[in-house]
Amino acid sequence: MNSGDTAFMLIATAMVMLMTPGLALFYGGLVRSKNILTTMMHSFACLGIVSIIWVVYGYSLAFGPDVGGIIGNLDWALLNGVGLEPGRYAATIPHLLFCAFQLMFAIITPALITGAWAERMKFSAYLIFTTLWITLVYFPVCHWVWGGGWLSQLGKNFALGHGHVDFAGSSVVHMTGGVAALAGALVLGPRRGKFKADGTPNAIPGHHIPMAMVGCFILAFGWFGFNAGSTLAGGDLRIGVVAVNTMLASAAAAFTSMLYMWNRYGKPDISMIANGFLAGLVAITAPCAFVNSVAAVAIGAIAGIFLCLGVFFVERVMKIDDPVGAISVHGVNGAWGVLSVGLFADGTYGDGLNGVAGTVKGLFYGDASQFTAQLIGTATNIIFVFVIMYVFFKVLDKFVPLRVSEEMELAGLDHSEVAVNAYPEFNLNKTHR
Amino acid sequence: MNSGDTAFMLIATAMVMLMTPGLALFYGGLVRSKNILTTMMHSFACLGIVSIIWVVYGYSLAFGPDVGGIIGNLDWALLNGVGLEPGRYAATIPHLLFCAFQLMFAIITPALITGAWAERMKFSAYLIFTTLWITLVYFPVCHWVWGGGWLSQLGKNFALGHGHVDFAGSSVVHMTGGVAALAGALVLGPRRGKFKADGTPNAIPGHHIPMAMVGCFILAFGWFGFNAGSTLAGGDLRIGVVAVNTMLASAAAAFTSMLYMWNRYGKPDISMIANGFLAGLVAITAPCAFVNSVAAVAIGAIAGIFLCLGVFFVERVMKIDDPVGAISVHGVNGAWGVLSVGLFADGTYGDGLNGVAGTVKGLFYGDASQFTAQLIGTATNIIFVFVIMYVFFKVLDKFVPLRVSEEMELAGLDHSEVAVNAYPEFNLNKTHR
Amino acid sequence: MNSGDTAFMLIATAMVMLMTPGLALFYGGLVRSKNILTTMMHSFACLGIVSIIWVVYGYSLAFGPDVGGIIGNLDWALLNGVGLEPGRYAATIPHLLFCAFQLMFAIITPALITGAWAERMKFSAYLIFTTLWITLVYFPVCHWVWGGGWLSQLGKNFALGHGHVDFAGSSVVHMTGGVAALAGALVLGPRRGKFKADGTPNAIPGHHIPMAMVGCFILAFGWFGFNAGSTLAGGDLRIGVVAVNTMLASAAAAFTSMLYMWNRYGKPDISMIANGFLAGLVAITAPCAFVNSVAAVAIGAIAGIFLCLGVFFVERVMKIDDPVGAISVHGVNGAWGVLSVGLFADGTYGDGLNGVAGTVKGLFYGDASQFTAQLIGTATNIIFVFVIMYVFFKVLDKFVPLRVSEEMELAGLDHSEVAVNAYPEFNLNKTHR
Repeated sequence: MNSGDTAFMLIATAMVMLMTPGLALFYGGLVRSKNILTTMMHSFACLGIVSIIWVVYGYSLAFGPDVGGIIGNLDWALLNGVGLEPGRYAATIPHLLFCAFQLMFAIITPALITGAWAERMKFSAYLIFTTLWITLVYFPVCHWVWGGGWLSQLGKNFALGHGHVDFAGSSVVHMTGGVAALAGALVLGPRRGKFKADGTPNAIPGHHIPMAMVGCFILAFGWFGFNAGSTLAGGDLRIGVVAVNTMLASAAAAFTSMLYMWNRYGKPDISMIANGFLAGLVAITAPCAFVNSVAAVAIGAIAGIFLCLGVFFVERVMKIDDPVGAISVHGVNGAWGVLSVGLFADGTYGDGLNGVAGTVKGLFYGDASQFTAQLIGTATNIIFVFVIMYVFFKVLDKFVPLRVSEEMELAGLDHSEVAVNAYPEFNLNKTHR
Repeated sequence: MNSGDTAFMLIATAMVMLMTPGLALFYGGLVRSKNILTTMMHSFACLGIVSIIWVVYGYSLAFGPDVGGIIGNLDWALLNGVGLEPGRYAATIPHLLFCAFQLMFAIITPALITGAWAERMKFSAYLIFTTLWITLVYFPVCHWVWGGGWLSQLGKNFALGHGHVDFAGSSVVHMTGGVAALAGALVLGPRRGKFKADGTPNAIPGHHIPMAMVGCFILAFGWFGFNAGSTLAGGDLRIGVVAVNTMLASAAAAFTSMLYMWNRYGKPDISMIANGFLAGLVAITAPCAFVNSVAAVAIGAIAGIFLCLGVFFVERVMKIDDPVGAISVHGVNGAWGVLSVGLFADGTYGDGLNGVAGTVKGLFYGDASQFTAQLIGTATNIIFVFVIMYVFFKVLDKFVPLRVSEEMELAGLDHSEVAVNAYPEFNLNKTHR
Repeated sequence: MNSGDTAFMLIATAMVMLMTPGLALFYGGLVRSKNILTTMMHSFACLGIVSIIWVVYGYSLAFGPDVGGIIGNLDWALLNGVGLEPGRYAATIPHLLFCAFQLMFAIITPALITGAWAERMKFSAYLIFTTLWITLVYFPVCHWVWGGGWLSQLGKNFALGHGHVDFAGSSVVHMTGGVAALAGALVLGPRRGKFKADGTPNAIPGHHIPMAMVGCFILAFGWFGFNAGSTLAGGDLRIGVVAVNTMLASAAAAFTSMLYMWNRYGKPDISMIANGFLAGLVAITAPCAFVNSVAAVAIGAIAGIFLCLGVFFVERVMKIDDPVGAISVHGVNGAWGVLSVGLFADGTYGDGLNGVAGTVKGLFYGDASQFTAQLIGTATNIIFVFVIMYVFFKVLDKFVPLRVSEEMELAGLDHSEVAVNAYPEFNLNKTHR
């Protein structure tokens, strides 16, 4: 046990907790004023619901003793046996603190999805969704990658590098969330007025861009806890690498998304830059400990371009309405991030990871099998999450209407869903309402 | 001395400092736009005034060498002898750092009171109040519980468990503040227009609910420093328990306050949920290190209900105007939190606390005397703070008018009290002004 | 190597990163709504550009092996050789983490300048400015003071105390930024409408004061990482002194600036109090580890007065338009802070600093030569930064217009520079636009 590690993980836990409110602000600023509180409430609800589920059975399913590589058993339900001794996952901190840290990841994953469904989803349906989704999708995927499940054992069992490697969650958190966002947005359909009769999109501007910027920056702050905390030890010197790479990738991504928009539309677009910044953070999340600084810049720079391409592809080609860009930020760049481990991992870290001797090396450093493991994990994530989500949403819609009524949507969801007017004193113009 | 502990306490100190601005935002969002800056200024002023007083004589009164169990003496005035060696209270960090950490608690206590007096209190009176109140009320109560005073010695002297136990301040900070808020709101009277002639209340909606939400979340972030930092050592493994319990209680309280409002009014009310969230944090503050996860959920769940009941009782039965719910959040749930130690403490922590051998056990684990100690502390706090405050406010009002004039109140306090218009470019409607 | 130190420095790095968004909010709230996003973008751009430059050659120029006391060489370009071993500057943390921590300082320095140029500078010119300025001004000054350059060697070479001493950046970060802000504001000229024909200033109120307050508080939070992190070791007990002094100086400065305004204009002015608060933080940044608590209060109290005097002098005597007070906050009080080391350093810290035996003592503790070293550094900073900046800006203006066109300025920069409307749904009045 180590006081520096324990102290560090407590602070990192608080920093990751703060990311969910960060999302609430980012998404809240990007929707119309009539829906802001409902949008914030989606994130807030995750804090409440997922915390309770996590204690009751979630932590045990995700991280508990493995059942056939598929899921944890219920030995740790109600945190039974999860105490102050070091646990299976971190030798120098209390097991319970690891559990608290991972709780924050479980909270933010359903929260990040919600942006894609903003301004039209019914709050009660959302609560049911969160409960079931976290159970059916998040806990298994988390177990496969981080809980000792089959994806993490691809190396040991099939000589595919170190198995599927995802340092801090490009796959487990972001891709999972992004793919679910896509499936949900497909089933839900676009907001009224988003697309013209001929399918061309209308811009529906966010009502408070400075608020979105604050959210973006709170996310970036928390991300240092998210990525560096995933060492599970403040004394792991690797956090030096993680810190530099996290900053560099986000900077590079913000930069390339700025250049892309400036070049294409003649002006830098601040909301795309903010999304680019986040895309860089998402992409570097999986590789942050395994790659060098130059690779981090490359991964980020590419993430910024992917973000712009993704946003336009989703809106203009797929005709899907994603009010905040969550599908591109988290889905596209989650996939890019986890694949980039298989390209850029430089063999300086990860000795013995997932029970495989030697360090983690990507394709550019001679290990094509690591890239294969990353590909398998990525494909599995996309297919599993998309199919489960799509079926689940279609079925759920039979029992609980997922969308609010047309009148509610026009009036704004805050009126019907949270009973409070966000800005009762401010005169708002009607054109955007 | 330990680097992990020292590092941890520095960060925890910064996190607790941030809670006072968090309050400024929470309260600022819940008042009308014409009073927001004055409301924020109340919190800001605490940072300035209490810091200076703390150095001059405050720390010495609260934590200095004991005089008859009642108050500290002035040996440590001007931080004389408070240096880098370990102090009396924490063996592994510099004494001065403990002093800085406790300063942040002394700052937030008068700041949290102010919400109940918002939109009508004169700023100059508030400055005098803060100076005197922190001296006459906070320093003694803090000394009784944390500085080795008589409440902490109830165990040693009268065999009442470990004496009055309050891990991180449900009593010292929150109940003290909440009771003072109640007494002050009684003397000040309601805002003009709050109650109709027949005594039924009018709703006066907060002008910027997203701002209140940001404040709520900043508070929650800081609370991890507040509760976990109260171990005074990053290396105390107990911070694992503290982190999990802090999250669980707030989640459960947000959840039950949501259900209560949804059930009773047909819609979840986001501002009551936010207050519920905070109520859960207040309640778990005293017991966070002494109870298990299931108890934390129970304490939080009950706190969420107490919050709703308290808000309605204060407004509808007592006819007291508390614009932000401070009396219920901090007063009612501060009392509940400190009592819950006497119920749920499970005997896994606190060996030797307050000079009593053995761990802390509550009524449900067989030690009724601990509950008695909690009851005595609670009753003492309520009576002492209420009486002192009520008399003090009545006397102060003779010399310095506590309320602004009617014209000032109608025009908004920002105009007369801070000379700046919060939103000079935004068109505001007249109906709520 | 030490886990507590490494953990601490990672968190401190994240906290200092958050200060740049804090500036974005502070400045954003103090400008008009039509320019807020461009103002935020200035800070955002620093995160992107400086990060990349830092890796490519910046860190090496600032901190790399010394060339004649003037600048670092390029041995560490692309972070070559900067890895997980302890580096030259901190024995207990990875070199790369020190590099990440210092990156955040390099980011905030050009960001803090931008407030003085708000509402009129062209974004493309700003990007060129940042790239060149950080290279021509920041890296050399940083090297002189912190990288082993000539100012730090004044003690060793000329028996001037410990050479120029600046614990956390009153000089390197704040004065450098403040002087550049002054030179730039001179060349740029005032906003249209700021001064009447007779030279008397018009007030142009900030559009969102609560946002500015949030920014101010985020800055204060980050400052604990900024100052305490500059020990480069969580285990340095001195962080106890740093924490207390940081809080005290900011409190005292807020207090004196409140009293000054109250006394002079009959009302406390919240935006001057916030600027006073920051001025106290700027001033204590250099001396925070070297002075006692009473001196910290004195330094802060004087800083609050200097801030008020500075703001009025710049606006009314120099007729320079500094929309946010950056010149006075960072320039005037940066100078005051670094000079105050030479007055108040009490000989309890700094043994062996800059290769000079014994602790650091100021004039009041008998070492006039230390004050001389502080004076030389201050004069050098002012002359070097001002001359370089003034020439550089004049030359740059020949190639790239620094100011937007009159129409753009009237329409607001957000329209032309970031393509997004900050508040599309809010009705804004025309009087302030």
